[in-house]
Amino acid sequence: MHLDPIVNVLLSLSVVMLAGKIGAIVAHSFKQPLVLGELLAGVTLASFSLFGLSELDFLKDNSILETFSSLGVIILLFEVGLESKLSEMVAVGTKSLLVATVGVIVPFILGYYVSGMIIHDLPNVSKIFIGAMLTATSVGITARVFKDLNFLNTKEAKIVLGAAVIDDILGLIILAVVSGIAATGVVDFISIGSISLKATIFILLSVLAGLFLAKKTITLIANKWNVPGMMLSLALVICFMGAYLANQFGLATIVGAFCMGLILDDVHFKNFNSDKTLEEYIQPISVFLVPIFFVVTGLNVDISLLQDPIVIYSSIALCLVAIFSKLACGWAFPSKEKFSRILIGVGMIPRGEVGLIFASVGKSIGVVDDRLYAIAVIVVITTTLVTPPILAFLINKLSKTAINEQS
Amino acid sequence: MHLDPIVNVLLSLSVVMLAGKIGAIVAHSFKQPLVLGELLAGVTLASFSLFGLSELDFLKDNSILETFSSLGVIILLFEVGLESKLSEMVAVGTKSLLVATVGVIVPFILGYYVSGMIIHDLPNVSKIFIGAMLTATSVGITARVFKDLNFLNTKEAKIVLGAAVIDDILGLIILAVVSGIAATGVVDFISIGSISLKATIFILLSVLAGLFLAKKTITLIANKWNVPGMMLSLALVICFMGAYLANQFGLATIVGAFCMGLILDDVHFKNFNSDKTLEEYIQPISVFLVPIFFVVTGLNVDISLLQDPIVIYSSIALCLVAIFSKLACGWAFPSKEKFSRILIGVGMIPRGEVGLIFASVGKSIGVVDDRLYAIAVIVVITTTLVTPPILAFLINKLSKTAINEQS
Repeated sequence: MHLDPIVNVLLSLSVVMLAGKIGAIVAHSFKQPLVLGELLAGVTLASFSLFGLSELDFLKDNSILETFSSLGVIILLFEVGLESKLSEMVAVGTKSLLVATVGVIVPFILGYYVSGMIIHDLPNVSKIFIGAMLTATSVGITARVFKDLNFLNTKEAKIVLGAAVIDDILGLIILAVVSGIAATGVVDFISIGSISLKATIFILLSVLAGLFLAKKTITLIANKWNVPGMMLSLALVICFMGAYLANQFGLATIVGAFCMGLILDDVHFKNFNSDKTLEEYIQPISVFLVPIFFVVTGLNVDISLLQDPIVIYSSIALCLVAIFSKLACGWAFPSKEKFSRILIGVGMIPRGEVGLIFASVGKSIGVVDDRLYAIAVIVVITTTLVTPPILAFLINKLSKTAINEQS
Repeated sequence: MHLDPIVNVLLSLSVVMLAGKIGAIVAHSFKQPLVLGELLAGVTLASFSLFGLSELDFLKDNSILETFSSLGVIILLFEVGLESKLSEMVAVGTKSLLVATVGVIVPFILGYYVSGMIIHDLPNVSKIFIGAMLTATSVGITARVFKDLNFLNTKEAKIVLGAAVIDDILGLIILAVVSGIAATGVVDFISIGSISLKATIFILLSVLAGLFLAKKTITLIANKWNVPGMMLSLALVICFMGAYLANQFGLATIVGAFCMGLILDDVHFKNFNSDKTLEEYIQPISVFLVPIFFVVTGLNVDISLLQDPIVIYSSIALCLVAIFSKLACGWAFPSKEKFSRILIGVGMIPRGEVGLIFASVGKSIGVVDDRLYAIAVIVVITTTLVTPPILAFLINKLSKTAINEQS
């Protein structure tokens, strides 16, 4: 009777949430970050079809799951932004800029040369795309591990988060450059200028709104229109609109959500006289949505790609390039303070949807073939999967050292 | 650069959430239930296009909004179930059964005769469909008003909620009967039997799972696999799977969600050693999703239907039938206790998606024409819009009387 399209949504969400929790339980029992378990749960679900089980195929290319997954990573970065302070991010600004710059230059150069060495007769423009594809850090994984291990409130975490925002702007510029080169053979400085300008305007407007508008507006709403649920709804609308506007300014939605979290502060919401902080209100929504992002990321892994030996060898080589080239980020700035430089480098390793956008654009203009695309996908997945355990290992070691030094 | 399909989702959600909150603020200032403000906010958004403003047209027939809206009403009924106790529902079972039965018979008979009187030459089978369409109560609105006004924990609320569950089963049977009559001219007792059996099995299995399985299983999970976020994720998976299974047994998803909420109890979750109750965890998700349901319900109103005078007159007549025929529910059972019988009747007034399903099925087999369909839509909307203010008025009067009697 009830031919309700929601039933597929309910089934997809239930399976993904259940798989995520089972993965988290397994990861927990091996003392690994929960996010690794969620990613591998997704990979496991995806690989069922390799064994002839097609029952779970409805989870793949499922637009509803993609929607919830995107909202999940938006909520995650908003939460991370809420836990970070604008002033502290500005304080590490120069370091973040240097980290982001090194994290773009080194992978680009290494990616360009290594791809030329391992695949013969690769056109110059294809090498440029492979190099460019390796530049874009995706901060979701790192943010989640930092958050799970209570590490967000450290200098290293702040530098990496700041660098990720700058990295996104640099990524935009690089895509404009390489697409221009592929299309016309020349570098289009006007479009580069306009892209950089727009992205910078968004960041500046966010900071100004945070400094001069947020407190007044939110206090006004709290005093005049405090209906039940107002505080959380207001925060969510700010998060979603920030993510939307970031996209309209050419940036990633998650950068917008992070900026909105950054400019919002619990102090702004004190006139709501709520017994809970904003973070406590957001947390259940994050428990609901965030794991969906990581399970779906795992679900997008297509293990059948690993059948062509050239794909395997090239992927191994480029994964190594992708991993080691970002480690250089840790040594991007001089400092007399003590930093875990390797932690900063590892934090920059994960690539994500922006890398895949590079590969897709390259594919659509014909400079990235199916094999190169498969390699790009494998690099994105590998950097995503290896980062959580390494980060967890480094952070645990770091806290032990700290305890030893104290005693 | 980031050609992300999520941007439309972000914009749609932001606009709907913002409109819902503005509606809630206005309703609050007029001392009306917030849900009325949310419904009218949706109607307002929908009517922009009548004035030539097409900017908001993306909100209509928006499958993403429909998804979030459906999840919203599922979460609402789950929450309402959590706040109700199984034993208390069983205690009012007979009363609920009588209320549901009267609430089916009276609207059916009145709908059948009145539709024949106001529209000449209406075929018998069309009159049967109009009658049947008026039988199905949709409990979302009533549940929300009861919840907002802290009225869930009363005998009246429990009787109405129980009656809504039974009403859904009766609705299934009626649809089988009238579809059978329309198709073959006879009543198909075998399919009626199988439908009733399946629905009853779902309810019984839920109750058994609640009595014998829930506590043990949840305690086991809490003791062995209590990873962060487990308690809320587990509850959400139970809610979503219950809604899914209800649909597989032929019932509405919201009936499944309500049953799951009903069988879950905070006691089951005490081994998670959480500082929050399950209801406190669910509440932010409900603040996020539930208003989307009501704004989207308002958005589905097509005011342009009101151009044909016959549609207007017939709608007025059938709306009156729809409203007054359900009032009879309040007097469905004998009792020496004091009940607000009119409150029970009003609580049963709202019709919803099940009524529209009747109209759609009738339309697809050719016994409901475009006009009758428009009338059905108007009846559903009107019953939805008039109920919140009447309920709020009655509940306020009731609490004042109670205070006067005490003093």
